[in-house]
Amino acid sequence: MKLLVANLGSTSFKYRLLELAGSDVRELAKGGYERVTDHDDAINQALGALADQGLVRSAADLDGVAFKTVFGGELTGCVLADESVEKALLANADLAPAHNPPYAAGLRSFRERLPEVPRVALFETAFYQWVPDYARRYAVPESWFEAGIRRYGFHGASHKFVAERSAELLGRHDLAANVRRLYSDGPQTLPGAPVRVISCHLGGSSSVTAICDGVAWGTSMGLSPQSGLPQNNRVGDLDSAAVPAAVRRLGLTIEEAERQLTKESGLDGLSGVSNDLRDIKAAADAGNARAQRAIDAFIHAIRHWVGAFWFELGGCDALVFTGGIGENNPWLRAGVCAGLADLGLYLDPDLNASGPAEAPLTTFDSRTQVFVIPANEELVVAREAARLLSTLTPST
Amino acid sequence: MKLLVANLGSTSFKYRLLELAGSDVRELAKGGYERVTDHDDAINQALGALADQGLVRSAADLDGVAFKTVFGGELTGCVLADESVEKALLANADLAPAHNPPYAAGLRSFRERLPEVPRVALFETAFYQWVPDYARRYAVPESWFEAGIRRYGFHGASHKFVAERSAELLGRHDLAANVRRLYSDGPQTLPGAPVRVISCHLGGSSSVTAICDGVAWGTSMGLSPQSGLPQNNRVGDLDSAAVPAAVRRLGLTIEEAERQLTKESGLDGLSGVSNDLRDIKAAADAGNARAQRAIDAFIHAIRHWVGAFWFELGGCDALVFTGGIGENNPWLRAGVCAGLADLGLYLDPDLNASGPAEAPLTTFDSRTQVFVIPANEELVVAREAARLLSTLTPST
Repeated sequence: MKLLVANLGSTSFKYRLLELAGSDVRELAKGGYERVTDHDDAINQALGALADQGLVRSAADLDGVAFKTVFGGELTGCVLADESVEKALLANADLAPAHNPPYAAGLRSFRERLPEVPRVALFETAFYQWVPDYARRYAVPESWFEAGIRRYGFHGASHKFVAERSAELLGRHDLAANVRRLYSDGPQTLPGAPVRVISCHLGGSSSVTAICDGVAWGTSMGLSPQSGLPQNNRVGDLDSAAVPAAVRRLGLTIEEAERQLTKESGLDGLSGVSNDLRDIKAAADAGNARAQRAIDAFIHAIRHWVGAFWFELGGCDALVFTGGIGENNPWLRAGVCAGLADLGLYLDPDLNASGPAEAPLTTFDSRTQVFVIPANEELVVAREAARLLSTLTPST
Repeated sequence: MKLLVANLGSTSFKYRLLELAGSDVRELAKGGYERVTDHDDAINQALGALADQGLVRSAADLDGVAFKTVFGGELTGCVLADESVEKALLANADLAPAHNPPYAAGLRSFRERLPEVPRVALFETAFYQWVPDYARRYAVPESWFEAGIRRYGFHGASHKFVAERSAELLGRHDLAANVRRLYSDGPQTLPGAPVRVISCHLGGSSSVTAICDGVAWGTSMGLSPQSGLPQNNRVGDLDSAAVPAAVRRLGLTIEEAERQLTKESGLDGLSGVSNDLRDIKAAADAGNARAQRAIDAFIHAIRHWVGAFWFELGGCDALVFTGGIGENNPWLRAGVCAGLADLGLYLDPDLNASGPAEAPLTTFDSRTQVFVIPANEELVVAREAARLLSTLTPST
């Protein structure tokens, strides 16, 4: 099966052409454009390049185009992306302004250019379809809930991959197989003690997800991708009285308050140095106290969410670090895992110091395993799209 | 030492006259007024009644008037309440609108009537003076922090009492003595493993506090008393994008959104039944699904915060329930403590079912002790005030 994975940012378009056969994935081509002002034009150029390379000469050469769409409100899952998906993305653009409009534009562009090629949307909210109802709710008036103000969750592609891969690393291939089929078959019960995983996706955007037997019980991002952990420049968790207080005390409009919370906050706002943890760490190591405080606050927030889920799950079989920050920073992982002897978690300093590749990080007697599992979100998107398409197309 | 404890609500004034001698406390009188529109007048009546009873005939009969003030911004602790306290209360009334104005009015009234009698303000934020800097911060721009948008914490009187009493119940009288002197002497180091306590104050207003060796490490209420757990009619934790989204999607003004979050949310908003957990429980038991969901969401939120602090503290020696809801509902405590065998917590169902009096609730082999400790906030206020005044007055 030949799939094009389309990755759309507010000013970028990247793509990978992948050939999938069973669990094997081969990359046939990749490319991308930055400083994009017209996504339609960028997609046209990309398709031209793939045609020139002889890889996609016509619609018949492509089994599908897959999109990691962010936020469709109540519309979620891994679905065929007809025009209703474009509409849902635009209707919910207020809560994902950087992501939803380009994805809607990209879907429209492929629909117009290659109408015969199925488009698949894997929503970042899809992994949270089975979160218990009480955990999706804020304690707001019913009218707010009906207006869509509830917990959705994001980074679903990455956390679902962690659910699958961690099950394999724990030797639970039965569970891994269930996770692979989750979006088609739904949650399946398994005999024996549940497998409890806490997944930390730490990168430019970060979240922590609780996973029980392959199904998400909750995640740190709620209504919007700006909640939970402090993000590179987005605020993370904040008291609901803060926006009204800022409007009153700083004389901001609500729009300006919102802009500052999504552009000038998070690690950037805390550190005053940068939105990039590498710069912040270098500044902290050079003695910058605000940079060190930003790091301490970030680790504190990660521990807050890991701890909340540890308790909710009644323990933790595997704690996983993924994403650029999670994979590359032993000092950060050590901070998150510090002082947990009473909970039975013992990090092995030598294993933790090893490279960013997939690895177990704990001593032999640690009751909780800690793993690095490198993220590969485009691969996840392609696999989910292939699974959906294979259920629709008679296999050859 | 004879102290009057003045308890001011937005439409109420209650008082207790207490005689303190060492750790003995004797109540000499109590009284109060509801539907108060003029606090000055209510205080006048109360002082008249105390004079008529021959208990307080002049200023010389009273060693102090003690107030459980809520929110003074950066001004906190247990302090002599001169006019600067009244000003700080009024300057921060936007974040505690139900509590700050009546306390400012009450302080002024006693200052004018009994200028010779010292007034003591015990701020509800006082217990959080030593929370680490990184845990006080939201990831907001520095200008927001400078405008006072940071975590303060509330219910300090209740949680500090739990810190003291739980230390006694754990047999750590050295620690209990330190806690008693905390506001005068500051945190003291103790030899040996730290004592880690998580205190759940559950009532009309609820919060969870992490306490390590008698000092708060954090609490679920942040900038305002409407954050953390869902309160009776206040929202609890909420995504920072929710207020702007509600303004856009529901056509609310920011003031109306704020009003709904502080008057029509919390357990009331979730259940659609009542702001009183007793009514909600009765409705849930009668089959009302929304009421049951409100209960589930409340327990989930308590577990979230207890878990976060359990991890932050690296374990928990005592988990304490206090406040009306915490003291009177075995079913709620059982829900909070469910499924924690891996963490070494075993509730004893018979002990848990016993009355609301002070009691241990766990089996002999539970690594974490669970206690009910009845709250008595006026006693706490009187004791703190007496400690402060005794450091100022030569003892007789």
